[in-house]
Amino acid sequence: MQISKGVEWAAHAAVLLSALPTGRGLKAEALARYHSVPGPYMAKQMQALSKAGIVQTARGKHGGYRLARPAGEITLWDIMTAIEGSKSAFTCTEIRQNGPCGATPEQCRKKCAIAAAFHAAEVAFRESLQAISLVEIAAGVAADSPRKHLRNVGAWLEKEAVAIG
Amino acid sequence: MQISKGVEWAAHAAVLLSALPTGRGLKAEALARYHSVPGPYMAKQMQALSKAGIVQTARGKHGGYRLARPAGEITLWDIMTAIEGSKSAFTCTEIRQNGPCGATPEQCRKKCAIAAAFHAAEVAFRESLQAISLVEIAAGVAADSPRKHLRNVGAWLEKEAVAIG
Ligand code: FES
Ligand code: FES
Repeated sequence: MQISKGVEWAAHAAVLLSALPTGRGLKAEALARYHSVPGPYMAKQMQALSKAGIVQTARGKHGGYRLARPAGEITLWDIMTAIEGSKSAFTCTEIRQNGPCGATPEQCRKKCAIAAAFHAAEVAFRESLQAISLVEIAAGVAADSPRKHLRNVGAWLEKEAVAIG
Repeated sequence: MQISKGVEWAAHAAVLLSALPTGRGLKAEALARYHSVPGPYMAKQMQALSKAGIVQTARGKHGGYRLARPAGEITLWDIMTAIEGSKSAFTCTEIRQNGPCGATPEQCRKKCAIAAAFHAAEVAFRESLQAISLVEIAAGVAADSPRKHLRNVGAWLEKEAVAIG
């Protein structure tokens, strides 16, 4: 059971975008440079976030990304499913209906106890990520960073942010 | 994020083994036939369960499998990790240390807020599966099955179970 590396990248990019003042955006290229990761792969994550309605690109020549809604309304679950899809991790193939003692479809209207237990575990996982928005993450990152580091980030954003409509 | 199909197979096989009387086992071939799945692939899951100490093969010519400990002490988490391994789903590559504003390793002694949130979600997932043992699963399956179906399963087990030491 693996979550793709793109989720870490997309989450960090979204946290950085949450620090931008209104009317400003960052190009995918700048996001890649900030995180020192390959441009095309970062661009792919940003397109997935855009498709999921988490970020939007401004019209105009600069084409910067900004968050599409307030940071407090974007959870880590939104970001993960934008990149990974929201298919269940556990797939039940109804194996209980197979073989010499297979249950009939009528006996299988309720989810199998095994599938139900995995479903409950996935709900717990989802609810945990849904409880954390970009606001909490940004606050956590800021609390862990020395003031000098935050000043560097601020200066970098000032230099790289593009005006968006 | 996907859980392999083998987990469904292994969980169902383990539930079936939990219905055996003491001193009896089932061959991998019979487990495959019961679930109508390919023998070699079922054998592979049983070997993984055996390696994880969840089932054991008896010595002797029959070589049947039985549970290695009481069903109440085998959780769905044990079965899943026997098949999938217990590596975290989320991998943090310490992307925060990259780029023009990268944090120093000293600033990164604590887990990144993003990695910490995924870790917490995985703990919730794990604890949910750890709360369900084969006893609960078997009770759930039995509660959902008509008595005639349970009699069929009992008769099949009587026919197929091999004596083990
Ligand atoms: S039939 Fe799919 S998990 Fe039981
Ligand atoms: S540095 Fe890896 S998740 Fe933040």
